[in-house]
Amino acid sequence: MSETPVIRFGVIGCADIARKVSRAIKLAPNATLHAIGSRSIDKARRFAAANGYPEDAKVYGSYEEVLDDPEVDAVYVPLPTSLHVRWAVVAAQKGKHVLLEKPVALNASQFDEIIRACESSGVQLMDGTMWMHHPRTNQMKDFLSDAHRFGQLKSIQTFFTFAADPDFLENDIRAKPDLDALGSLGDEGWYCVRAILWAANYELPKTVIASRNPVFNKAGVIMACGASLHWEDGKVATFYCSFMANLAMDITAVGTKGTLHVHDFIIPYEEKEASFYAASESGFDDLVTKWASQPSKHTVNTDLPQEVLMVREFSQLVTEIKFKNSKPEMKWPTISRKTQLVLDAVKASIEKGFEPVQIEE
Amino acid sequence: MSETPVIRFGVIGCADIARKVSRAIKLAPNATLHAIGSRSIDKARRFAAANGYPEDAKVYGSYEEVLDDPEVDAVYVPLPTSLHVRWAVVAAQKGKHVLLEKPVALNASQFDEIIRACESSGVQLMDGTMWMHHPRTNQMKDFLSDAHRFGQLKSIQTFFTFAADPDFLENDIRAKPDLDALGSLGDEGWYCVRAILWAANYELPKTVIASRNPVFNKAGVIMACGASLHWEDGKVATFYCSFMANLAMDITAVGTKGTLHVHDFIIPYEEKEASFYAASESGFDDLVTKWASQPSKHTVNTDLPQEVLMVREFSQLVTEIKFKNSKPEMKWPTISRKTQLVLDAVKASIEKGFEPVQIEE
Repeated sequence: MSETPVIRFGVIGCADIARKVSRAIKLAPNATLHAIGSRSIDKARRFAAANGYPEDAKVYGSYEEVLDDPEVDAVYVPLPTSLHVRWAVVAAQKGKHVLLEKPVALNASQFDEIIRACESSGVQLMDGTMWMHHPRTNQMKDFLSDAHRFGQLKSIQTFFTFAADPDFLENDIRAKPDLDALGSLGDEGWYCVRAILWAANYELPKTVIASRNPVFNKAGVIMACGASLHWEDGKVATFYCSFMANLAMDITAVGTKGTLHVHDFIIPYEEKEASFYAASESGFDDLVTKWASQPSKHTVNTDLPQEVLMVREFSQLVTEIKFKNSKPEMKWPTISRKTQLVLDAVKASIEKGFEPVQIEE
Repeated sequence: MSETPVIRFGVIGCADIARKVSRAIKLAPNATLHAIGSRSIDKARRFAAANGYPEDAKVYGSYEEVLDDPEVDAVYVPLPTSLHVRWAVVAAQKGKHVLLEKPVALNASQFDEIIRACESSGVQLMDGTMWMHHPRTNQMKDFLSDAHRFGQLKSIQTFFTFAADPDFLENDIRAKPDLDALGSLGDEGWYCVRAILWAANYELPKTVIASRNPVFNKAGVIMACGASLHWEDGKVATFYCSFMANLAMDITAVGTKGTLHVHDFIIPYEEKEASFYAASESGFDDLVTKWASQPSKHTVNTDLPQEVLMVREFSQLVTEIKFKNSKPEMKWPTISRKTQLVLDAVKASIEKGFEPVQIEE
């Protein structure tokens, strides 16, 4: 029996989210924290110490050194969105597999540069949408795919909001036009749009219309917005995202035969268990004074938190490429790109005064 | 001590919903079933027998006879929407208080005729939106009104869908252009719009935009539709209604400090208790791997079902007019009219190819 190969990660940048993903790399059975790089070596040292990096982990004072380290198999890129195209492309060119934070780019054409670089080098590309990897997500998908229990999707509404403090709204990287320039749309809207596409089997909507009255900060970055998405078969989705409302993350999806409710789809209430509510062929009693049956609660347990499962899945794909000459799994960049295309359409609709925008693949 | 006055109801029409409301009149402590009228006296007799009318209840072969019965204090009007203006106006002219099914009319100008007739006669007018009278509704409103627990409303999404059989989609009165001509919008959309206005303290939105791809039946009646509603302060609401999706009735409302979730707002799962979920100042743990606290479930008990509370409230208002010379309570027709104005705007937006429609009071 050979040992499970372990994929060596280099992390470029010490963003807050890199703390959570560093822990995930540490906990994943097939991954290890090999290197951390920051523009400041002191910052990198402090980050490594605070986040349980192994004593022999490499600590670099630049991103380049991480990418030039021949022992690094894969890089995790938590940098601001505006830097993604530059660093993901260089990483791919240097043969590193790329786990890339979301939103993957400022627009789909930038992301296409990243895809091309990864394809040229034969490296795996995956975005950091953690909830996709929770076993609950698969169980919810089984329900949505069940012709008897859920039927055909008709409408889906999603929310992702949280209440940032006033300092965030001016000074967080998600509030800066030269950093995470897509603001709330890129940060929160990404999850809403992904959930909608996921429920719609990744069929892109035909038309996207932004909601009126998005909120911008003084620098012109979106702090709150929403949109409706329309398919030719009549299916309709809406979402709302905001940095200025209480934390909420809901999916309500209605099909011809069933209903799905979930209130914590992005980050489950608890790390090791997560629930959703499913109803099928719901109805009333004869006099329409109560329901014949109530939605059932489904609880899914997981030993490993969803971000660990993400790292494990990514590392497994990298292992198959590295040791078995497999091709990169294109499912992941494909759904990243579709998500980005819808974000682009929402942004374009806002810029065009809330006109409908057609999506062309 | 004088006995509680009992308001004598006449019911005009034997629609299915009249079964439920007849039971509610029977159960209300201050109301009694005095008369039932149908265009067919046989049908009226069968209805009275099947629905527990008192042995001495009057059974009439016309609506006129109910309205001409001097002992009838109030009429309940479950007739198709297209007949509301005619019969509600006659009822008011004959001095009867009017409990009117929703949607209250085919458009707001028709409803204004009803309001004027009721004002001229000094009779109470109320629509049949039962959930408004459930004690849960007041508790949810207390939460939404709490500056500390919920804050300022930012976004609300509502659903009302049910899966009608194919026969319904062609032959139910809600599928007929000469009867409930507003179809799903009038029947289901009414509740969605009412919930949105209720949450927004009945402040009308400035702009209404219908969703693309509403579904019409062969006769041109709306079977499914949706819309987004926009206020000047940036607040946004969306709703979706359909006769062709599983039964679902959700409100998700997000404020600056709190979140409200309810899955059965129109007809509670159970007759005597109903729940909602409230969250305040929600947040994550330090590493953003789980929530610091979960929404709390609030269960509200009621001895009397919500439709009985509706009849009791209406009868109480009638009693105060009849015995205490009070004026009719204008709150009820005012919110009916606002609901109708929004429905009118959704319909206008659909007819104008999904253009934004401004609401003028």
